[in-house]
Amino acid sequence: MSENIKKIAVLTSGGDSPGMNAAIRAVVRTCAYHNIECIGVYRGYEGLIDGDFESLDARSVKGIINKGGTFLKSARSKTFRTKEGRQKAYENLLNENVNGLVVIGGDGSFTGALVFNNEFGFPVMGIPGTIDNDIVGTSHTLGFDTALNTVVDAIDKIRDTASSHNRLFFVEVMGRDVGHIALNAGIAGGAEEILIPEEDLGLERLVDSLNKSKTTGKTSSIVIVAEGDKIGKNIFELKDYVDENMEGYDVRVSVLGHMQRGGAPSCFDRVLASRMGVKAVESILDGETNYMVGLINGKMELTPLDQAIKGKTKINLELLRVSDIMST
Amino acid sequence: MSENIKKIAVLTSGGDSPGMNAAIRAVVRTCAYHNIECIGVYRGYEGLIDGDFESLDARSVKGIINKGGTFLKSARSKTFRTKEGRQKAYENLLNENVNGLVVIGGDGSFTGALVFNNEFGFPVMGIPGTIDNDIVGTSHTLGFDTALNTVVDAIDKIRDTASSHNRLFFVEVMGRDVGHIALNAGIAGGAEEILIPEEDLGLERLVDSLNKSKTTGKTSSIVIVAEGDKIGKNIFELKDYVDENMEGYDVRVSVLGHMQRGGAPSCFDRVLASRMGVKAVESILDGETNYMVGLINGKMELTPLDQAIKGKTKINLELLRVSDIMST
Amino acid sequence: MSENIKKIAVLTSGGDSPGMNAAIRAVVRTCAYHNIECIGVYRGYEGLIDGDFESLDARSVKGIINKGGTFLKSARSKTFRTKEGRQKAYENLLNENVNGLVVIGGDGSFTGALVFNNEFGFPVMGIPGTIDNDIVGTSHTLGFDTALNTVVDAIDKIRDTASSHNRLFFVEVMGRDVGHIALNAGIAGGAEEILIPEEDLGLERLVDSLNKSKTTGKTSSIVIVAEGDKIGKNIFELKDYVDENMEGYDVRVSVLGHMQRGGAPSCFDRVLASRMGVKAVESILDGETNYMVGLINGKMELTPLDQAIKGKTKINLELLRVSDIMST
Amino acid sequence: MSENIKKIAVLTSGGDSPGMNAAIRAVVRTCAYHNIECIGVYRGYEGLIDGDFESLDARSVKGIINKGGTFLKSARSKTFRTKEGRQKAYENLLNENVNGLVVIGGDGSFTGALVFNNEFGFPVMGIPGTIDNDIVGTSHTLGFDTALNTVVDAIDKIRDTASSHNRLFFVEVMGRDVGHIALNAGIAGGAEEILIPEEDLGLERLVDSLNKSKTTGKTSSIVIVAEGDKIGKNIFELKDYVDENMEGYDVRVSVLGHMQRGGAPSCFDRVLASRMGVKAVESILDGETNYMVGLINGKMELTPLDQAIKGKTKINLELLRVSDIMST
Repeated sequence: MSENIKKIAVLTSGGDSPGMNAAIRAVVRTCAYHNIECIGVYRGYEGLIDGDFESLDARSVKGIINKGGTFLKSARSKTFRTKEGRQKAYENLLNENVNGLVVIGGDGSFTGALVFNNEFGFPVMGIPGTIDNDIVGTSHTLGFDTALNTVVDAIDKIRDTASSHNRLFFVEVMGRDVGHIALNAGIAGGAEEILIPEEDLGLERLVDSLNKSKTTGKTSSIVIVAEGDKIGKNIFELKDYVDENMEGYDVRVSVLGHMQRGGAPSCFDRVLASRMGVKAVESILDGETNYMVGLINGKMELTPLDQAIKGKTKINLELLRVSDIMST
Repeated sequence: MSENIKKIAVLTSGGDSPGMNAAIRAVVRTCAYHNIECIGVYRGYEGLIDGDFESLDARSVKGIINKGGTFLKSARSKTFRTKEGRQKAYENLLNENVNGLVVIGGDGSFTGALVFNNEFGFPVMGIPGTIDNDIVGTSHTLGFDTALNTVVDAIDKIRDTASSHNRLFFVEVMGRDVGHIALNAGIAGGAEEILIPEEDLGLERLVDSLNKSKTTGKTSSIVIVAEGDKIGKNIFELKDYVDENMEGYDVRVSVLGHMQRGGAPSCFDRVLASRMGVKAVESILDGETNYMVGLINGKMELTPLDQAIKGKTKINLELLRVSDIMST
Repeated sequence: MSENIKKIAVLTSGGDSPGMNAAIRAVVRTCAYHNIECIGVYRGYEGLIDGDFESLDARSVKGIINKGGTFLKSARSKTFRTKEGRQKAYENLLNENVNGLVVIGGDGSFTGALVFNNEFGFPVMGIPGTIDNDIVGTSHTLGFDTALNTVVDAIDKIRDTASSHNRLFFVEVMGRDVGHIALNAGIAGGAEEILIPEEDLGLERLVDSLNKSKTTGKTSSIVIVAEGDKIGKNIFELKDYVDENMEGYDVRVSVLGHMQRGGAPSCFDRVLASRMGVKAVESILDGETNYMVGLINGKMELTPLDQAIKGKTKINLELLRVSDIMST
Repeated sequence: MSENIKKIAVLTSGGDSPGMNAAIRAVVRTCAYHNIECIGVYRGYEGLIDGDFESLDARSVKGIINKGGTFLKSARSKTFRTKEGRQKAYENLLNENVNGLVVIGGDGSFTGALVFNNEFGFPVMGIPGTIDNDIVGTSHTLGFDTALNTVVDAIDKIRDTASSHNRLFFVEVMGRDVGHIALNAGIAGGAEEILIPEEDLGLERLVDSLNKSKTTGKTSSIVIVAEGDKIGKNIFELKDYVDENMEGYDVRVSVLGHMQRGGAPSCFDRVLASRMGVKAVESILDGETNYMVGLINGKMELTPLDQAIKGKTKINLELLRVSDIMST
């Protein structure tokens, strides 16, 4: 274990996700366990530039493992995209004698960390925190599982009213570039169709499918739509199209929105956050840098940051097929 | 107790609300307790006209007290607004030897019941089922309490992400004519401002208030907006106005939508539904008609249907004041 | 409004209940609204004696309205039962220039407040915080509604497994002296029988009732038992008796325990806490003392503390009857 | 694909777990998708022997994906352990022209399936349904994830009251032979210590650890105890020991009990159930028998039943270490 590392900083960056607080707690307590100092950086890279730091010991993170959001707050920083901004951040870390940085966030945040390391050789380690599950190098990003449960709970509620009224609901869930939330929550919510960015079902086939559902005896239906669905129409346009091209359904729209990002993290996300925090800190102590910790085949593994930020995770084709079969 | 009543029908009508199943169960079991028959009518007045009936005994309503929606389904019926429609409904009830009708729904449904009684002298009894709490003659309509908890749970989640990012959120909740959901959920969700149909805050005062909140150290804010808020702008227009007239906030919008109508009913709504079902059936057995059962000062009371459908419940001024003080 | 009151102290005492944090917040913000100071006292009367105070302003109570428990912590204090202890507490309050004390707790806590006022003439105001709903002068104590939802959620889960296996479950809920939790949660959970301290069903009638349930086609059953049920047997003895005197059921026991006291408060409890906090502070400012604030017929009212601590609230006989009818 | 398979039967056996209904639904719909018949068997092997069958089509399983328990009910069957019982079951299946059997349950249920196949050559396929996660051949059994969330939610509530009162809580969770629930929920619930069947901490070390926690500033603590913890004392004896050998804590016990088996399945369990149901039916159609479907490295895989019923899954040593570090 590297004896040069005496102090580690941790920040959250980009969109928040459930489990970020649990990950901060894990970073802080792993530092305490190894008798090294830990400081929290407020507002992501913005706070790094402003020197908005707070010393954190094991007790200072009590009672946060079950809290949504991030008590260190998050932000997107334009200044960190400038050389001057990063220089200032570097100096702040040096002044505080910090030897390593844990960045909890998504691919944009990791890109910043990588640039920072390239310029100053400062050890950085990433923890993937985003509800979208769109990062290569981990089967689950932090917050994905919680967001799925939030979405499914909302779909269950919507189905209550849909089936009481023989209605067709379009429900929009998060996912601009990837359909993981839509696909998993759609299967779990018993959706008739799931529209995702990776696959263009086409409007006609959508209407065909819904018509077929009716003939098989379904009296209400739910269609899950990812924000970035490939059909290329927003959810209100979809409703209008179906209203015009289909009979016998009262069509409604529900956009789940930002509540998908909040809430107490699930058990899965809390355990994942704890494992990731331990792995991130101990990897820095082992002299590693420029990696992201992730869950691969059930184990904590490191993936180079430059691989993690390339491309997007692929949709699971088996799940697409399961979805088709389930809407029989 | 009237010995003429041998068979009672029950239906749900209008928008569904959590607790309707529990109320149906209570009606059915109270009939069973008094050894009279009970039939369920599907799809509200539509089913009454179509003769879509099912005989229900005590066991046939097991396992539904905790289910959202209504297994008898609900609908709005245009045909029941015609004399012919109601005549057909009456004949169907006569053919089935039904002597009384329990209508679970809102004021539109009660108006139908009243007209029906006026024409045919058929005994009718109303149970107020709507999440809006807008019916005179009961402190709580069925589903109101559950909807409040659903809304507050969503606000809690939104606050997680709002406070992680120093954001201002406009959150739209149900309530076209009355602000009960907005006011109660707003207080419980710690909202800075609550916009309701009963009170026009005005756009300038809204911005003033939000600016004042910032100066007192608030870094994120939530404004609850009832669908029918008096300012007369929809929630996206509100966002635009604030975006233009206020600095330092990242403003977002969330429309909670139909999930507010679903979900397992709260303990309060299940107990209320059970009490209302008992009272409704026993009032018919006592020879009463044209009443709505309701909770007044903690007791089950009858209110004439023609009073129940007149006007809307008033907003509680004490709550408005509490809301002001809490956003200090 | 009294101009003599410049500073109010608030403490939580006795068993904790959901909504206590929301009530503290309401007390603090109402003080801020009226431009008077507020201090929090840690660990109830113990902290009053130890001078364990913290100044609280409007911002210091942000983010707590939805948290269970009490951040001021609670305790039972033996020392406060001594004259010396109370003398010390009085001196601490004088030294801090505190002019009024809000006590959030149950009847034991109110007794302490009353004795304290009698000795030193110090203005005290009570807020009823307990899940048991056993205090005269309010239709709902703080935390009762939340506890009911927690219990009902647990019963729903237990019913899943009970009905999968044709089992009979005895479920113990809190309530040593009163059966309000048992009765309400029992109705809402669809219990076959509810054993409460106020009524002795008798073991034979219990077995008769369960046998009758079986003959009417019920394949699983849940019996809710208040801690202090009148039959005078603990829940394991009940199980043994039924095991010996009844056939065809696999009998199980579940004791819900302390989780009934925790959790995010319901909307109802948050609104109630906010109203009570406002009323408590403003009553002190109006020169009142020795009262408890409470909800009576939907309005905030004052009840003299000596009345509040006398006797227990009565069980609602209408609910007992509803319970009987529902288990038809 | 085998053209000999025309009809598949499905049953649930042993202790129920959340997700069983979702798995039944998946089996039924996959049959419908492949145009083969499906029948449900009530009460596990008991119903197989009694011929308690019901034909199930795609619509007959609507609305059950989110319901806890199993609508086919479950049971343990002594008769199926006899040759006569199994003979009768076999004849019933023959009479109904059933060609394959899907068994949803734990290792006891799988043993029965294996014996049945050995005797009659009847194709059987297992789906691992148990909250204990103790079956070799799948990283997650059906219901494990849901049970974890239920346990963690209860721990969160208990912590509210523990930290309000500076208490030490022993919380018993399910797990007679394996500590997976205890270990995961303990980490997620922020437990100080976790007592599991796989590891004997020893009473002295437990007290040492709790004393050390106090010196580091912890004022309340939660210890998770699996039913079958290795220390060899039940949870009440543990409390007594700590009461006698430790000062300064008010020690309490909570046994979570059967509610751990119920509740709406999590998104994870619903998706897993859907995948397993598809895989089980299609494996039978592919001519396979005597396998269990499972999740291995994120993919659906088959494991021979005789391997699945041998031994127990191992505890994850990394998690043990994470737990130690987190309680720093």
